[in-house]
Amino acid sequence: MYWLMIAPVAGLASIAFALYLFLYVSKQESGTARMEEIASAIKEGASAYLRRQNVTLSVFVLVMAIVLGVAFGYKNGFIYGFSASLAYIFGSFCSTLAAYLGMRTAVRANVKTANAARSGLNRAFPVAFYGGAVMGFSIVGLALLGISLLYYIFGEPSMVLYFSFGASALALFAKAGGGIYTKTADISADLVGKVEIGIPEDDPRNPAVIADNVGDNVGDVAGMGADLIDSYIASLIAAMIIGWETSASFKEIYTVLPILIAAAGIFASIIGTLFVRVGKRGNPGAALNRGTFSTCIIFAIFMFLITYFIGLEGNQGLGVFFPTLAGLVAGVIIGVTTDYFTSIDRPPVLKTAEAAKTGAAINILTGFSYGIMSIVPPVIGICAATLASWYLAGAYGVNSVYGVAVAAVGMLSIVGMIISADAYGPIADNARGIAEQAGLGEEVIAISDRLDAAGNTSKAITKGFAIGAAALTVLALFAAYAEIVDITTIDITKPTVISGVFIGAMMPPLLSALLILAVGKNGFRMIEEIRRQFKQIPGLMEGKSKPDYARCVDIAAKGALKELLLPCLLAIIAPLVTGFILGKEALGGFLAGSIVTGIIFALLMANSGGAWDNAKKYIEAGAFGGKGSEPHKAAVVGDTVGDPFKDTAGPSLNTMITVMSLVASVFAPLIVMFALSL
Amino acid sequence: MYWLMIAPVAGLASIAFALYLFLYVSKQESGTARMEEIASAIKEGASAYLRRQNVTLSVFVLVMAIVLGVAFGYKNGFIYGFSASLAYIFGSFCSTLAAYLGMRTAVRANVKTANAARSGLNRAFPVAFYGGAVMGFSIVGLALLGISLLYYIFGEPSMVLYFSFGASALALFAKAGGGIYTKTADISADLVGKVEIGIPEDDPRNPAVIADNVGDNVGDVAGMGADLIDSYIASLIAAMIIGWETSASFKEIYTVLPILIAAAGIFASIIGTLFVRVGKRGNPGAALNRGTFSTCIIFAIFMFLITYFIGLEGNQGLGVFFPTLAGLVAGVIIGVTTDYFTSIDRPPVLKTAEAAKTGAAINILTGFSYGIMSIVPPVIGICAATLASWYLAGAYGVNSVYGVAVAAVGMLSIVGMIISADAYGPIADNARGIAEQAGLGEEVIAISDRLDAAGNTSKAITKGFAIGAAALTVLALFAAYAEIVDITTIDITKPTVISGVFIGAMMPPLLSALLILAVGKNGFRMIEEIRRQFKQIPGLMEGKSKPDYARCVDIAAKGALKELLLPCLLAIIAPLVTGFILGKEALGGFLAGSIVTGIIFALLMANSGGAWDNAKKYIEAGAFGGKGSEPHKAAVVGDTVGDPFKDTAGPSLNTMITVMSLVASVFAPLIVMFALSL
Repeated sequence: MYWLMIAPVAGLASIAFALYLFLYVSKQESGTARMEEIASAIKEGASAYLRRQNVTLSVFVLVMAIVLGVAFGYKNGFIYGFSASLAYIFGSFCSTLAAYLGMRTAVRANVKTANAARSGLNRAFPVAFYGGAVMGFSIVGLALLGISLLYYIFGEPSMVLYFSFGASALALFAKAGGGIYTKTADISADLVGKVEIGIPEDDPRNPAVIADNVGDNVGDVAGMGADLIDSYIASLIAAMIIGWETSASFKEIYTVLPILIAAAGIFASIIGTLFVRVGKRGNPGAALNRGTFSTCIIFAIFMFLITYFIGLEGNQGLGVFFPTLAGLVAGVIIGVTTDYFTSIDRPPVLKTAEAAKTGAAINILTGFSYGIMSIVPPVIGICAATLASWYLAGAYGVNSVYGVAVAAVGMLSIVGMIISADAYGPIADNARGIAEQAGLGEEVIAISDRLDAAGNTSKAITKGFAIGAAALTVLALFAAYAEIVDITTIDITKPTVISGVFIGAMMPPLLSALLILAVGKNGFRMIEEIRRQFKQIPGLMEGKSKPDYARCVDIAAKGALKELLLPCLLAIIAPLVTGFILGKEALGGFLAGSIVTGIIFALLMANSGGAWDNAKKYIEAGAFGGKGSEPHKAAVVGDTVGDPFKDTAGPSLNTMITVMSLVASVFAPLIVMFALSL
Repeated sequence: MYWLMIAPVAGLASIAFALYLFLYVSKQESGTARMEEIASAIKEGASAYLRRQNVTLSVFVLVMAIVLGVAFGYKNGFIYGFSASLAYIFGSFCSTLAAYLGMRTAVRANVKTANAARSGLNRAFPVAFYGGAVMGFSIVGLALLGISLLYYIFGEPSMVLYFSFGASALALFAKAGGGIYTKTADISADLVGKVEIGIPEDDPRNPAVIADNVGDNVGDVAGMGADLIDSYIASLIAAMIIGWETSASFKEIYTVLPILIAAAGIFASIIGTLFVRVGKRGNPGAALNRGTFSTCIIFAIFMFLITYFIGLEGNQGLGVFFPTLAGLVAGVIIGVTTDYFTSIDRPPVLKTAEAAKTGAAINILTGFSYGIMSIVPPVIGICAATLASWYLAGAYGVNSVYGVAVAAVGMLSIVGMIISADAYGPIADNARGIAEQAGLGEEVIAISDRLDAAGNTSKAITKGFAIGAAALTVLALFAAYAEIVDITTIDITKPTVISGVFIGAMMPPLLSALLILAVGKNGFRMIEEIRRQFKQIPGLMEGKSKPDYARCVDIAAKGALKELLLPCLLAIIAPLVTGFILGKEALGGFLAGSIVTGIIFALLMANSGGAWDNAKKYIEAGAFGGKGSEPHKAAVVGDTVGDPFKDTAGPSLNTMITVMSLVASVFAPLIVMFALSL
């Protein structure tokens, strides 16, 4: 089967492409000495944080590897257990490496983008975009290479499951830790700098400014890559398991088809990046969207060819093609409708901004309400995609559950392009910060502002995409779990199952609460420190002396590491406790409950946060009195409430529900053996 | 069966007791002419609003009665259809009448409490408490009388279902409308009066002050009575249906047992009120709790006697007694743990208050997070009560589902006492308002403050109780629905069912969002009006001329009536659409999804609102700079965000999930016949 080679080749191609872009970014100039200095401060802070995070987490990885090795070695023999441990560690390593690589390139791309902005928009845009793309393509390539190698070596998908678990668990830690870090720094810098002292954003006199920039890189770049990549791997393993477990004939084809589709997605994404170009007066936002849409079309064509020629019986190829397409289309629709709720020129944001005229409270209530209403289109989209893929697969004689699983794969296959467009955002944001701190002048800042604004639009679309993809993925994982534990119904009229649903549904909001409290607590410490520096360092306000940046970087890092453990461990322990006490069917209920509230809270947090943010920006652009007016102050409060909503809690939820689903599937054989099963 | 007579006798006894208390309250003095004037302004505003609301809703009731009559007349013959319409109208009428009676007594009790406070705490407390008790006992009595009559006339429980649907639908309208009204007035009065102009709460110069007082009566008193009473009726009908459908032998006993248990609850509550007494230096909060706890104990004894002597086979009596007791105990535990998250001297409130030192944003984030964390104990309590009652019933040979249903009945049987303690709160609150407006002096205000504070504590406990009871009730209704449509499993691995779960789960947050937006929109209009009056009425600030109270009352009423329709109709239409398109099993999923997020959002909204409110009060008592300080201003923002959370959206959610469950059960026969059943 020469088909099999496509997946590792695509993985390698993706890595090679990332390397090529990396070299392109590297050879750009870094600008003035002052710029170099700022960039290296950010790089040092980010590296130091990731190093500390990795040291802390390596203990967790080691313990979990031993647990897996012993448990499954006991059950299936030493070699199996040892392999499981290694596959798990390999997954953790890939996730960590991807985050690290992405962060390193982003830190490099920031300053080079700022410097290129001195020569104009059309010079700066590719630096920022290719910087993001390095991240996108390197991690997608790594993931696909890892999955295909594991499958080819072991000849069955269970090792890929351990790999996926490792990758997702580390992604959750990275997302939660990075999210706490970035918002601690961001909120504290704003509250003291902008609100109390009255100096502008990114002002070098602010002791937290470096921590804030570091946060953008460890939170938004490293964390967000992790967010999508863990869904990517999980959707593949879910589809592979279902293909493996449910197919009588063509078992092998159904098992490898998901990774072939993923390979098609990589090639489509590489071609898609060629469409991302702006002219001198061009529009960077349109360029990013053009890239996404052309990737989708090319991918659809590739996918049709693969499913047509792979050699399935009769029309079964269409029974895979149409569900995959349904997933892709649903992803785009969800992305675009989500955009409505956070766009600066649409009623939700405009009304949120207008409400600020009566003060912060109604501004907050309005944004919160629209955040809730933004749930409706994606939820309907997810249900429609699920039902459509189910029936389309069945109509052509393919297992219906497999249809749902490949719909998730279809949505996520173009994730290389999605991450590229998404990682562009924080790079542009940081470039703006460096331009401000290095005093590059009005015109350069204006160009960076335009780059930054485009990042916000593409971010809204990709965020909707990520949540939709996560939803379908966990639904597929849910089905995979049912296959693994061999239950045909999960009946919510049973008291254990409905209790499972209740407990599972409680988890995503609980994680959100713990993460938000962590930001609050940590921010509290940092605010005290910033106030102290302004009070005690003579000449700081006048710009005559330098603040102690390192102290703030240190507070953010220590706090993030301390606070991330409890919520993340909860995601691993809660499904196990539920499964062992209430039984395997209740654990199915637990997963369903967590998926439902996970999606709802993820959307609510992301979109209300986005609405508050843009309402503030709308006022800053001159509406209702503009900057410094009372409505502006009110909108700043709303924006600050939204910060941990959209950048700490919201994005962690996708990953959390994926991790919980994977925990259930990984430990399913043990739960079946040892559950108390009330 | 002379047993049967107990229920209507208890209903009549409850009404007679309410009448006795009503006469007691009526014969108290109303105080000065100024007090009379204020009281009659409040009474007029409240009556006018309820009249308008009833006129609007009568159209809805009529249309729905015709729909029910035609649909079920077509299916089961003219007489059945006609009876169904009448039972439905009767339920609507009882709900409306109860709200009206409660509001009228409360309005009367307000001023009489304020007057009695001039003679001391031990004179004022009984007036306020008995005022609340009139409401509690009159509606419980009406409900039980209605249910037992309908059952005895028709000899089977289906007419009680239409009765329950009527009562709950009207309760939802009353709760939503009253909730919008009260918070529109409250927020607007505070934002302009306290924040912008700087005059105290309840100051007669504030044009919205009467609207604010009216709101307390139409929102808190009338609405909250509706909130508990609809769960009460629904829990009874759920248990009756399950008793009727699942019992082979002793069918009639199992069907009437729930109403006999309810009768025991009424007698226990009447006796319990005798324990509610304070001495001259006594503690009103302790008195209220003593009443609740002694009612519980007396009720448990009565319940044991009934289940023992009713004549069930073997130990089956214990199989009813223990689940009922489990429900009661769970209710109390949930109430007490909820109290932890909103008590003024516990970490959640203290940390929320402390966070206000850094401004409004972190105060809001902290309160919101603790609101989420407050979900954990009740959810575990609900799961424990469900599992325990299921197994305890089964262990003694009683149908397990019936066990869950009587647990809900057990929790709700003492609702007469609960409503009394709960309605006491707004009466004390209003008495304080009248004392302030009528200038009764420092000492009287201090006494009203103490009465008011006790109201807040008891409110937290009863709120937890209400949510726990609603959860068990809808779980019982969910089981009743499954019995009616005759499905033995609701399997969430089916795509239609999981889609149903998603759509159902979306409904409670969506209702919340619509109600909160309604408050925001309406508040916006009212704020403009208050500002206009302060600007255009000469001498208003100096107290030389009177504001135009009626305009504000009018704005609040019009807005509330306009905004309540969409969200409430959604609660009725959404389950029907889901059922007819996706089928009966998907509708089961819909109900499960709505129950889960309904409980989560109800708790989140109620308790974060409570935490912000008490954090503000804690600062007002002198912490972190006290009244007028920056932290205080920040806490006021948090409190304002919490207002529609805890008093508009949160309390409507209980009722919403009950209504949706009842819609499903009522229309189940039609859904089974006509569903597209994808």
